[in-house]
Amino acid sequence: MGQQSGNGNAARNDSGYNAWLSYPKLPQGPLYMQYSKWCGAVSVTEEHDTLQAALREWQRGIASLLDIQAVSAPQPEGFRVAFGTFGGGHPLIKDMYDNKTVKAVGDEGFVIRTSQSLKCIAIGASSPAGVLYGVFHLLRLIASGNDIENLDELVNPVNSLRMINHWDNFDGSVERGYSGRSFLYENNQFTQDMDRITDYARLMATAGINAIAINNVNVHALETLFISTYLPDVARIAGIFRIYGIRLFLSVNFAAPMHEGEVGTADPLEAGVREWWKSKAAEIYAAIPNFGGFVVKADSENRPGPFTYGRNHADGANMLAEALEPFGGIVIWRCFVYNCKQDWRDRKTDRARAAYDHFKPLDGQFNDNVILQIKNGPMDFQVREPVSPLFGALERTNQVIEFQIAQEYTGQQRHVCYLVPQWKEIMEFDTLAKGGTAPVKRIVDGSLWGNRLSGVAAVSNVGNDANWTGHLLAQANLYGFGRLAWNPELSSEAIAAEWIALTFGTKAAAAGVISRILLDSWEIYESYTAPLGVGWMINPEHHYGPNVDGYEYSMWGTYHYADHQGIGVDRTVATGTGYSAQYMGSNALRYDSLEECPDELLLFFHHVPYTHVLHSGKTVIQHIYDTHFEGAERAEGLLDAWSGLKGSIADGLYTQVEERLKGQAAHAKEWRDQINTYFYRKSGIEDAGNRTIY
Amino acid sequence: MGQQSGNGNAARNDSGYNAWLSYPKLPQGPLYMQYSKWCGAVSVTEEHDTLQAALREWQRGIASLLDIQAVSAPQPEGFRVAFGTFGGGHPLIKDMYDNKTVKAVGDEGFVIRTSQSLKCIAIGASSPAGVLYGVFHLLRLIASGNDIENLDELVNPVNSLRMINHWDNFDGSVERGYSGRSFLYENNQFTQDMDRITDYARLMATAGINAIAINNVNVHALETLFISTYLPDVARIAGIFRIYGIRLFLSVNFAAPMHEGEVGTADPLEAGVREWWKSKAAEIYAAIPNFGGFVVKADSENRPGPFTYGRNHADGANMLAEALEPFGGIVIWRCFVYNCKQDWRDRKTDRARAAYDHFKPLDGQFNDNVILQIKNGPMDFQVREPVSPLFGALERTNQVIEFQIAQEYTGQQRHVCYLVPQWKEIMEFDTLAKGGTAPVKRIVDGSLWGNRLSGVAAVSNVGNDANWTGHLLAQANLYGFGRLAWNPELSSEAIAAEWIALTFGTKAAAAGVISRILLDSWEIYESYTAPLGVGWMINPEHHYGPNVDGYEYSMWGTYHYADHQGIGVDRTVATGTGYSAQYMGSNALRYDSLEECPDELLLFFHHVPYTHVLHSGKTVIQHIYDTHFEGAERAEGLLDAWSGLKGSIADGLYTQVEERLKGQAAHAKEWRDQINTYFYRKSGIEDAGNRTIY
Repeated sequence: MGQQSGNGNAARNDSGYNAWLSYPKLPQGPLYMQYSKWCGAVSVTEEHDTLQAALREWQRGIASLLDIQAVSAPQPEGFRVAFGTFGGGHPLIKDMYDNKTVKAVGDEGFVIRTSQSLKCIAIGASSPAGVLYGVFHLLRLIASGNDIENLDELVNPVNSLRMINHWDNFDGSVERGYSGRSFLYENNQFTQDMDRITDYARLMATAGINAIAINNVNVHALETLFISTYLPDVARIAGIFRIYGIRLFLSVNFAAPMHEGEVGTADPLEAGVREWWKSKAAEIYAAIPNFGGFVVKADSENRPGPFTYGRNHADGANMLAEALEPFGGIVIWRCFVYNCKQDWRDRKTDRARAAYDHFKPLDGQFNDNVILQIKNGPMDFQVREPVSPLFGALERTNQVIEFQIAQEYTGQQRHVCYLVPQWKEIMEFDTLAKGGTAPVKRIVDGSLWGNRLSGVAAVSNVGNDANWTGHLLAQANLYGFGRLAWNPELSSEAIAAEWIALTFGTKAAAAGVISRILLDSWEIYESYTAPLGVGWMINPEHHYGPNVDGYEYSMWGTYHYADHQGIGVDRTVATGTGYSAQYMGSNALRYDSLEECPDELLLFFHHVPYTHVLHSGKTVIQHIYDTHFEGAERAEGLLDAWSGLKGSIADGLYTQVEERLKGQAAHAKEWRDQINTYFYRKSGIEDAGNRTIY
Repeated sequence: MGQQSGNGNAARNDSGYNAWLSYPKLPQGPLYMQYSKWCGAVSVTEEHDTLQAALREWQRGIASLLDIQAVSAPQPEGFRVAFGTFGGGHPLIKDMYDNKTVKAVGDEGFVIRTSQSLKCIAIGASSPAGVLYGVFHLLRLIASGNDIENLDELVNPVNSLRMINHWDNFDGSVERGYSGRSFLYENNQFTQDMDRITDYARLMATAGINAIAINNVNVHALETLFISTYLPDVARIAGIFRIYGIRLFLSVNFAAPMHEGEVGTADPLEAGVREWWKSKAAEIYAAIPNFGGFVVKADSENRPGPFTYGRNHADGANMLAEALEPFGGIVIWRCFVYNCKQDWRDRKTDRARAAYDHFKPLDGQFNDNVILQIKNGPMDFQVREPVSPLFGALERTNQVIEFQIAQEYTGQQRHVCYLVPQWKEIMEFDTLAKGGTAPVKRIVDGSLWGNRLSGVAAVSNVGNDANWTGHLLAQANLYGFGRLAWNPELSSEAIAAEWIALTFGTKAAAAGVISRILLDSWEIYESYTAPLGVGWMINPEHHYGPNVDGYEYSMWGTYHYADHQGIGVDRTVATGTGYSAQYMGSNALRYDSLEECPDELLLFFHHVPYTHVLHSGKTVIQHIYDTHFEGAERAEGLLDAWSGLKGSIADGLYTQVEERLKGQAAHAKEWRDQINTYFYRKSGIEDAGNRTIY
C-alpha cells in the first residue's frame, strides 16, 4: 500500500498494514490456473477517476494474488475481465446486460457475470462506485478461492448509509482510541500523509463504507473551525474519499454561529442563525460538492444544543437540515442524550430510559433529510445490554443504528472481542413494531417504515498504529462492520472466513483456529467481565480493567446496587423504574418478568438475591464464580490455540497477536479475582467448586 | 508585599497574599501608645543585607501596625529599637548583653530585652539570621498585643533543620499541589517574579524556616539539569533565600551521572561516579556558597537508586555525602521506600513494615552529614496512622521527621484541616527508646541520641494562588509547621492564636471563632472520612473524595479487607503481619492487643467484626455510622460559625473561606453517604439511629 510501497508484500504483511488488502499469494493448482486464464487482461474504457482507481486496484490485486501483470487494453484478445458503468459505453458491458438487469442494479450495486462465449467476466454498475464495489467483490471471490467460471450475481447494498464516525481530535488524540494517535491530525494540523489516507479510503471502500465523519462528535474550539478556516484541508481529504465512493461528513458544534460568526446566539429559531448556517452550507458545498452533511451531538454530556434556547431537538436538527437540503446534504442527530449529573442516591431516574423519553415524543417532527443516530443499547456500548427500545418506537423518523467498533468497554483492543456476533444479535432482535415481525435490521435498512434515508454507523477503531487497529484481530471488527452494514444477512462465520482468507490466505487449518478464536471471543470476554447484563464494573474514565464499584457512587446513572444480599437494577413497572415498558408487547412482558427475563439480561432488569436460581439451574452467585473461573481459563485457551499457529502464518502477524493474547490471559485472571473476591466478600457465600477466592 | 506594592494594605489583605505579614492596623489604646513610644526610631549600624532586610521589614511592619514611620538613624535620640549581631559593633547591643548571655545564644537564636535606662529595646544575635528572627519576633509580639515594656527573652530554635520540601516540577505543575501552579517555574523555565520569591522568603523566614528544597523529589529529565544547565537560575533564588537566612537544597536524580555526564553508570562504589559527584559539588558551591545539599528519593516508587548496582541505601547516601562534605553540605535521604508493585492477593507483605525493614539494619552505617528523612507514619500522610516505628529504632543515625503540609489526604485545601494538633500528637508520642521517656520530638531535635544534624521537614502547600495556599485557613498549617519546628513546645492553640492575630488582627470574638474552627477541623475531617485508622478509602491517583474500594484491589499495599463480616488489617504478631512488633515495649504490646489497642487505630492493627465493641462502648459499625453523620453535621457547623464573622473581617478574606466551607459541607455529605452506604450494603446491619442510608 501507499506508504510502504517500497517493501515487498511479505514485509508489508508482517506489520498488518495491508489488512484485508494483503492479497496473499494463492497456491498453485486448478483454481490458480482458472484465475490466471481470466485475469491476464483487463478492459476499462472510462476515464473517471473512480474507474481508474478500480483498475489500479484490480491490477495490484491480481499481481499479488497470482503473480501476473494484467494487461490493460480497450479491446484485449482472448479471456479478459471488463468493467464499466452502464452508461459508460463499454461494448462488452452493453452486450452482457439487458435493460431489466440494468434497472435492478441500484445506485451502488453491481452485476457480475461470466460469459464463456464472450470470453469475458464483466462487471457492470450504475455508478463508478458500483464498479469499484464489483471489482473488490471479484478480488474477494478469487482471494477466497471461489470458482469464477460461472459467475452471475447481482448485488445491491441493503443499507443506504454505511458510515464510520471518527472520534479523532485535532490535537492528534483519539477519544476512546486504542490504536495509537490519529492518522488524520497531529498537533492541531492535518497530517500530510495522503498515501495513508488513500490506503484508508481503499480499506473502507473494500469493506463497503460510503460515509465517514472525520472528527470527534465532541467538537472542541479548533475543530469548530473545520467548516471555515480548515475547509481547504477538509476538502483535500474529501477529494480522496470521493474517488473511493465515500462522502465526507463533519461533526459540527451547534454553537458555531456564536464562536465563528457575528451572531450572538445559536437559537435555531432565530433568523440570523438560520441564515448563518445556510450561507455556511453554501460555502462548504462550494469547496466539497459531494459533502455528506453534519453529525451533531447536542445537549448531551455538556455539549451545547437547542435546550439553551428552550427549543427541542427537532428545532435544532431541522434548522441545520434546511441549510443542507438544497445541496443534498443530511443531518445526523445523535440520540445519546441523558442526565450526566445524576445523584447516585436517586433510584428513580434511569439513564436507560433517557433516549426513548427524549425522542419518542418528537417522532414525525424531523425533516426528511434528518436522521437520528441511535446507539444500539440504552446505556453505552456495554458488553451486554438490551436493544434500545427506540427501535420500533420511532415510526415516522429516519434512523441509523450506532455501533462502536472501538472496543471501549470490550477490552480496548488489548483483549480480542469479535463484535460481529453482538451486532448480528442486535440486528436480528424483533422489536414487534408495526404489529408483526420487525427485526432491527428491517428498521435501519428503511424497509419497515419506508424510509429513504437509513442505515448503520459505527465509531472507528482506527489509529496510526502500523496495523491500524492496535490488535490485529480487531481488524476483523472494522471489516466485519462494513460487510454487515452492506448486507445484514451475512453470518458472523462467513464474515470471519472472508476476513481470514483476505488477511492470512486460504490455509484451512489456520483459518479454522482463527475463526474459532474470533467467534468465541465475545462470549469469553463477557464471561470474565460482565455477568448477567450488569455492566459498568470498570475503572472510571479510561474504562479499562475491573472495578466493581467504579461507577457505583458516580453521577453517570450507572449502578448495580450490589449489597450483601443481592444485586441488579430493578427496571420493572411494578417496583422499579418502569423501563421495561418502553418495549412492545411480549418483549415488555418478558423483560418485566423475573421468571421469563433471559439470564444474560437478568441484572439489567431485576434486583435479585445472590441465591436466585437462573434458567441455567445455577444461583446468581455461583454463576458469577463459574463464569469468571471459566472465562479466565478460556482466555488462556485462546493463547494456547494461537500458539499452535506459530510458523504457519507470517511471523510479524503471529508475534503481535501472541503478545496481546498473553496480556489478555493475565488480565482475565485479574478480572476473575477482583470480581469473585468482591462478591465473595460481600455475600459471604462460598464457591461450590471450592476454588481460590481472596 | 512585592508584587502588589501598588495597592493599599486593605486591598492586599483582601486576597490573602500578605498572609501572616498583613500587619493589621492596631486599635487605639494604651498598648498602641506604648508601641508608638518605642517604635518611632530604629537603629541598625550593620550593612549586611540580612540586617538591611530586617530593617526594611521592621519599618514596613511598624508603618502598617501603628501607622508611623520609624526613623532609622545610627544613634537616635529618645526611645528606640536597636538590633545587630554581637560582633557587629553596635554600641547599644554591646551595652545590653554580657558575655554569658552572648554565649547562651545559639547560631540562629536571639536575645531581646527592654532597657528603660537605655531607652532601648535591643535585639542581639550571633548571626544576621538570628537578628532577623528577633525582629520578626518583636513584630509578632506587637501584632498580637503583648506588653513590651519589660522584655527579656532569650530564644533559640529547638530544631537545627527546619525545612520545606517543594514538589514543584519544572513544567509548572506541582505534585500534590492544591494552590494553583508553581510560583517557581512555568513551562520549563524559572519564573521571573523575584518579588514573589522575595515575599515567599519573608514568609518562610518569619515562620522560622531555614532550609528549602525547591524541586520535586521525583526528579524528571529537565530537573536533573538543575545542577548544571540551570545552576545560574537556581543561584539567583538561593541569593534571595540567603538574605532571609534560608539555605537552598535541590532534589537530585541518583542517576544524574548517566544522564548528564560521560559516566555510563550511577554505581555509588564506582570511582568515576564518586569523582563525578565531587566535581559536581564543587561546581554547585562555586555558584552557591551556602548551598544546603541534596534531597534524594532513591529506589522508591520507580526512582533510580543504589539497588540497581547491588548497593544499599548507605552506599548511595554516603557517596553523595562525601562529595558535599568539604563544603558543609548534607544529604537528606528519604526513607519512603516500599514495594509499590504489591499483589493485593498477598496478605503477608505489609507496606507498613517497609521503612523499618529497609533502614533499621543500616543504623550506624551512614556518614555524619547524612540525614534520613522519615515520614511521620508508616504509610503515607493519612488522616490517621500510628507513628513510624523507625523513630526510636535508629540509634546512631541522623534523622528528620517529614510531615505533609500539603493536604493530599486531608482535604486538599478544599476542606479545612488544621494539622498542627496531628503533628503535636506525633511529636509527643513516646517511643520508649533508650529505656525511658523518649518522645519523637526529642529524637528529631537530636537531644536523645546527641545528633548534630536533625530536625523537621515538610512538604509545602504553596502555589501561585493569590493567597499562596488555596484555602486561606491552610496558611495556618504553613505558619504552624514553621513555628512547631522552631519550638515543639508551643501548643496548637498558641500557634493558632498567633496566626489569627497576625492575619486577621486582634478582635477577640472573631479570633475565638476562627480558633475553634481550626482546632476542631482535624477531628471533624477524620470523623467523616477515615474511621478507626483505616485510611485509603479515597479515589485513586488524585486522592480526593470518597471511594471505599479505591485502593483495595491495587498494587499499592493499601487495603482494608472489608467483607460482609468485618474490616481491618491484622498486623499482630500471632496472626497478622507482625508489624506491631516493630514498636518497643509496651507500645508493641498495646498495639498488638485487641483489648488495649486505642480505638482510633483499631483497624490499622486488627481485623474485627463490625459488631466488635470499642472502648467507647459502640460497635465498629455504629461508630462508622455515627461519626459520619456527626462529621457531616459538624462540617456544616463550621460554615455556620464562619458565617457569623461576616462584616467583622475583610470581605475578601471572608468570602474566599465561605466558598470553601460551603464546598466542604456539601462534600462531607457525599463522604457520609458513600461510606455509610458502602458499609450498610456490605454488612446489612441497620443504623441504631435509623437515619437515611442509601
